[in-house]
Amino acid sequence: MPLLVVGSVALDSVETPWATRHDLLGGSAVFFSYAASYFTSVRLVSAVGEDWPAEYTQMLQARGIDTSGLQIVSGAATFRWKGKYQPNMNDRETLEVHLNVFGEFDPVLPESFRHCKFLFLANGSPVVQLRVLDQVPGATLTVADTMDLWIEVQRDELMQLLQRVDGLVLNDAEARLLTDDENLVRAGHKVRRMGPKFVIVKKGEHGAMFFSEHETYVMPAYPTAEVVDPTGAGDSFAGGMMGYLAEQDNFDPQTLKEALAYGILTASYNVEDFSLDRMKQIERADIERRMKEYRRMLSF
Amino acid sequence: MPLLVVGSVALDSVETPWATRHDLLGGSAVFFSYAASYFTSVRLVSAVGEDWPAEYTQMLQARGIDTSGLQIVSGAATFRWKGKYQPNMNDRETLEVHLNVFGEFDPVLPESFRHCKFLFLANGSPVVQLRVLDQVPGATLTVADTMDLWIEVQRDELMQLLQRVDGLVLNDAEARLLTDDENLVRAGHKVRRMGPKFVIVKKGEHGAMFFSEHETYVMPAYPTAEVVDPTGAGDSFAGGMMGYLAEQDNFDPQTLKEALAYGILTASYNVEDFSLDRMKQIERADIERRMKEYRRMLSF
Repeated sequence: MPLLVVGSVALDSVETPWATRHDLLGGSAVFFSYAASYFTSVRLVSAVGEDWPAEYTQMLQARGIDTSGLQIVSGAATFRWKGKYQPNMNDRETLEVHLNVFGEFDPVLPESFRHCKFLFLANGSPVVQLRVLDQVPGATLTVADTMDLWIEVQRDELMQLLQRVDGLVLNDAEARLLTDDENLVRAGHKVRRMGPKFVIVKKGEHGAMFFSEHETYVMPAYPTAEVVDPTGAGDSFAGGMMGYLAEQDNFDPQTLKEALAYGILTASYNVEDFSLDRMKQIERADIERRMKEYRRMLSF
Repeated sequence: MPLLVVGSVALDSVETPWATRHDLLGGSAVFFSYAASYFTSVRLVSAVGEDWPAEYTQMLQARGIDTSGLQIVSGAATFRWKGKYQPNMNDRETLEVHLNVFGEFDPVLPESFRHCKFLFLANGSPVVQLRVLDQVPGATLTVADTMDLWIEVQRDELMQLLQRVDGLVLNDAEARLLTDDENLVRAGHKVRRMGPKFVIVKKGEHGAMFFSEHETYVMPAYPTAEVVDPTGAGDSFAGGMMGYLAEQDNFDPQTLKEALAYGILTASYNVEDFSLDRMKQIERADIERRMKEYRRMLSF
């Protein structure tokens, strides 16, 4: 099944304790699409400015990603983000954000995209996420991401969104902020009671937790000795997960758990180099090999 | 197989965001012994002062723990610790430490204890841990715990200890401190190369990692919605793990992995109330029931 994603496309600058890189291909919809492309065909909706390098579009197309929903806005600049990682590579500081074209992003989906059954609303304003939802009325699985900014400044709109999506993906700090509960098990279920059928709490290097009415579980991250750049790990996780669900055309509990594992493993590759540099070197078979190791690691 | 543990017995005072308790039964050897007692017979070596309540000794004996190595030192006071937990219940601050009798602790093992095959050196000075090792020359599995203090002030002695034990258990912050490496996968293997055949890095609410020459794996914590008091979680983990290994009289890779899981689950009960209050309510069958859930959680 094709998978539709609406989110940001960006040029990132990243500082780690060991290296600094500028104008890297980034953005939630980019990391998501690339990760999902190992599993299914992806349709991307976003906007960039005149400064957008055409070769980046070609790179996405080379993985079978349909970029016909990527609008190039003349007279505008692409969204830019600059961040700095702490030595633990888990905590980061945002140094600069220039929303540029993304500040006015009001996606109008191509007609051919409106019949997708699988929809991911990457991190963005819940107002925009709601407008996208309205354009895909027949979706059978809708999952959204969010962030601290929207929890703080658009909580009401976020609450409306939670009534309308099937799943929400957010990180541990965001789950605590949204529920005012430090215990992640309680926090996860509190978010679930706000509306979505399932909630996934991402814990960075510690893996991810899943919450539905009848299930609570946690899956560890794949132990990675080389973390070069964690930017996009959360979006790669969501891309691997949603890509697998769309491929299977199914989201029963067992498939969801497998999908979580695929998300974790896809993200484990993403962090091994800057931008998509590591992802560009792998194939589905690499993910499957790591899956075999992961299954062995968790069986006893 | 009987399991020998040498470590502290203490009276703890604990502050959490919701409650404060004084003079609780605590100490590394107490939490360890109690947890291990679900699996095997335990022999405890420690020292307390005249203020030690006799009913605490009886409570340990009621679980089959041999307390003939618990020395009551006249004119001395029991080790006391006071700590305060942050709202996340994972980070804590030590408010007071009164070593008292434990400051002069120089264990002389009863003759009948010196033939134990399974030995755990709970957190303590590596100088003392080395002296204990000398008294149990025939042990087939020796595992030690340590802490930041010894890494900082007795590093040379700790290095000697690491050459002589089979396994080391330490937490994530301690592994980072000992190796000056923020990446836990690298840090775990660096500690292993300091001597022990295997290293276990405890990650609190995020579970534990295992490192041997041929294996690297991580197991998540059991998702617990009610964390009342995490004091002793690490020692309960070690007790469950070592207790299971002693019961099985085996420490091959598969048994070690099962033991890690038993450690995680035993600790998951310990944190559900102050001191040993939750542990006193459970039986082996409760641990086995949680093990069944844990296995299901990790299988997909």
